[in-house]
Amino acid sequence: MAKARVHVTLKAGVLDPQGKAVQGALARLGFTGVDSVRQGKYLEIELGEADPEAARAVVADMCRRLLANTVIEDYAIDVGE
Amino acid sequence: MAKARVHVTLKAGVLDPQGKAVQGALARLGFTGVDSVRQGKYLEIELGEADPEAARAVVADMCRRLLANTVIEDYAIDVGE
Repeated sequence: MAKARVHVTLKAGVLDPQGKAVQGALARLGFTGVDSVRQGKYLEIELGEADPEAARAVVADMCRRLLANTVIEDYAIDVGE
Repeated sequence: MAKARVHVTLKAGVLDPQGKAVQGALARLGFTGVDSVRQGKYLEIELGEADPEAARAVVADMCRRLLANTVIEDYAIDVGE
């Protein structure tokens, strides 16, 4: 049993309209001094696979095939437990 | 200048249809042995505020007022740099 924490984030230089919208909303609420907001996805995946290295390999394959658009997104995987 | 990393996740027990959809899609791609998928949001916020504790307080206020629905979501904040 392994728990993988996956972060999918836009690559540097890719426009992030969702982050810009959040930044604008924060400004309207009176939060000044916000230089940038970037929004990504966060997933927690529980797997039957017990070996951490095998679990990481499986999750990397999931990222490439489904979870991330690797043209514009990066992914990072932490495996625990 | 501080960089805050914010995770917004559904509280335990709250149904996660987005996570379930990902789990179903993974199964259709042949990834067996996935016990659960929970999807959350991840934000990177750059602030002019230099003091880490002050930055954390500002970001916690942002979470309560905009970024998280605290009825059903939890948030976690890491402040770096």
